[in-house]
Amino acid sequence: MTTDFTATRDAFVLPEGMIYLDGNSLGPLPKAAAARVAQTVTAEWGQMLITGWNKAGWMDQPARVGDRIARLIGAEAGTVVMGDTLSIKVYQALASALAMTPTRKVILSDSGNFPSDLYMAEGLCRTLGADYALRVVEPEAVLDAIDETVAVTLITEIDYRTGRRHDMAAITARAHDQGALTIWDLAHSAGALPVHLAKVGADFAVGCTYKYLNSGPGGPAFIYVAPRHAETARPALSGWLGHESPFAFDLDYRPGRGIERMRVGTPPVLQLAALEAALDVWDSVDLADLRAASLTLTDQFIKGVEAACPDLALATPREHDRRGSQVSFRHPQGYAIMQALIARGVIGDFRAPDILRFGFTPLFIGESDVAKAVDVLAEVMAKRLWDRLEYQTRAKVT
Amino acid sequence: MTTDFTATRDAFVLPEGMIYLDGNSLGPLPKAAAARVAQTVTAEWGQMLITGWNKAGWMDQPARVGDRIARLIGAEAGTVVMGDTLSIKVYQALASALAMTPTRKVILSDSGNFPSDLYMAEGLCRTLGADYALRVVEPEAVLDAIDETVAVTLITEIDYRTGRRHDMAAITARAHDQGALTIWDLAHSAGALPVHLAKVGADFAVGCTYKYLNSGPGGPAFIYVAPRHAETARPALSGWLGHESPFAFDLDYRPGRGIERMRVGTPPVLQLAALEAALDVWDSVDLADLRAASLTLTDQFIKGVEAACPDLALATPREHDRRGSQVSFRHPQGYAIMQALIARGVIGDFRAPDILRFGFTPLFIGESDVAKAVDVLAEVMAKRLWDRLEYQTRAKVT
Repeated sequence: MTTDFTATRDAFVLPEGMIYLDGNSLGPLPKAAAARVAQTVTAEWGQMLITGWNKAGWMDQPARVGDRIARLIGAEAGTVVMGDTLSIKVYQALASALAMTPTRKVILSDSGNFPSDLYMAEGLCRTLGADYALRVVEPEAVLDAIDETVAVTLITEIDYRTGRRHDMAAITARAHDQGALTIWDLAHSAGALPVHLAKVGADFAVGCTYKYLNSGPGGPAFIYVAPRHAETARPALSGWLGHESPFAFDLDYRPGRGIERMRVGTPPVLQLAALEAALDVWDSVDLADLRAASLTLTDQFIKGVEAACPDLALATPREHDRRGSQVSFRHPQGYAIMQALIARGVIGDFRAPDILRFGFTPLFIGESDVAKAVDVLAEVMAKRLWDRLEYQTRAKVT
Repeated sequence: MTTDFTATRDAFVLPEGMIYLDGNSLGPLPKAAAARVAQTVTAEWGQMLITGWNKAGWMDQPARVGDRIARLIGAEAGTVVMGDTLSIKVYQALASALAMTPTRKVILSDSGNFPSDLYMAEGLCRTLGADYALRVVEPEAVLDAIDETVAVTLITEIDYRTGRRHDMAAITARAHDQGALTIWDLAHSAGALPVHLAKVGADFAVGCTYKYLNSGPGGPAFIYVAPRHAETARPALSGWLGHESPFAFDLDYRPGRGIERMRVGTPPVLQLAALEAALDVWDSVDLADLRAASLTLTDQFIKGVEAACPDLALATPREHDRRGSQVSFRHPQGYAIMQALIARGVIGDFRAPDILRFGFTPLFIGESDVAKAVDVLAEVMAKRLWDRLEYQTRAKVT
């Protein structure tokens, strides 16, 4: 298929005059999502009430939606289920993996990982006891750090600050070679570029849906378990909807079939409705086309900014296969610069200590947007427009 | 205040001809929730995009909404926060409590608890190691079973099947007397009757919002931590939004202030919007009035059914202070009877193996509804209308 990016752009609500380079933080509203959520609220919840669990298909939704995510991350059918938040899914995958490698006590991660992954791993280690440890190395040192002491690697493929991409195939192969399992965090990968979980032989993967997949604020997370582990992985977060027979109300837990056991509690039906509508956009998207378009846009942005803004230092690797779908620059005044950009309708975000982060999502961003964004950034830098008190004052959340 | 139950009834969407006695499973749609969710989707997500986290107040929503729940469960301001599912919150409370009582290894619960609570406790014990155990006794044996080996009690105040109510004050006092902590699951208490967490000195409490609080399918859970523990409880599920400074993106976890540390990942903004609107109804409700009305309705139902349906055995304690806001009857053909009732517009639910469960929520159920429900049940029983193949065939979910 050839992807029609004019059509995908038309599928989103984009406020007039805004160039939204922050779809890697919160994707924009798909037009169909508003109607779908309204239908779920009024026609399903309002009219079906409790019977909606069957009649409206709410109960099967986490697996049904999971299958649609599976296609986007190169996973086999029936290996992905939705629910909870990414942090919870990290914990769940980690606990399962550690239980599968009982003679090893080390979780290996890197300092480029999203902090919540590290925090959840810390929390799990503390719960498991003093034998367990989280080992955090520099991103460049991950491959060599995988040795026979490592139980599981917990790596985010795309760095949330710099956009640096790990070599998923090489790390997975090395981990397996050393007898370790792998958990891939796809927060900045799913919907950003082709992912090949099955092909690389990943063991577990987790991700969120409110970034490139556009499910809306607080949309549910997903978890992937490789088919070879699906019937043996034991969920530490063993909730009733992961039970073999939830409505038998047995006192003892028996894990459900395959990926179903990774469900925990009652699924967030309204958020899942928004996600289902958001995924409709993806039905007409070829991920190879998406990647090609993303690289065109990011190359254009890098070239334009480097030519016009000598004070900004590229933080993202230049090579195509070493980066995701975002471009980041460093500047000591990064926070104020981003505020000045936002005031002028170019929305990116700032990540401490000095990163200006811009996400490029070809579903709704085109070359003319990139050109305009470069112009605005060039003006902000050339005229030092960021140097105002109003832009220097930090809000609680950026 | 005197509660106007005509006004509260008018605040809900109730399908024509339906008598909804299942608000204890999924509350009906508050009229204001549809508009509130639509506004959050189109005006906030659609127009504010990423800036909604500040501008629309999404980031503070879990604590802001938590404070409104606090009033309904007798909790101090600043002690409740929203997020995740009830199962996850059970795990979080348990892990915190066990870490606070390191010399004890026993979680005490009862066989009347909702199975997911037991499953989560089992999963945590397995993660913690062989020293830890979940001890499950009969509901009547709980008080005597609290001894100096018990680290924490995990008790659901109102039994999900029978409506039997535990004595929260007595169990909490006994636990403290024996040096144990308490976790109260308020799934069938919050919004069903007055709860006095602070007054009884509860340590932790958890609950869901999609039952009596009417937040919609998959609405978020809440967790309460007593002020005396708020700065020492260490969350095992240590996610970034529970960090002291989430947007500093530190590599090491430092728990946030007080109840904020019990946040984990990104909150479900759309579900929280529905909940906020649902809580508006509660602003004009006096919980003493609610309880009085609930007892009138449940007394009426018990009396009516016992007079008309001699084959149904009351499973709910008769004494007011020993039950919640539901009434359950046992019958070997309970499943088929409930299907026959549902086909006639009286919605309750069935809980294996033989329980017919009816929830009474004075916000939208009145005495005439109860009278009609009794009539329909009497007819179903007298004419054996349940004895049809179509009612005997079980759906996957009831």
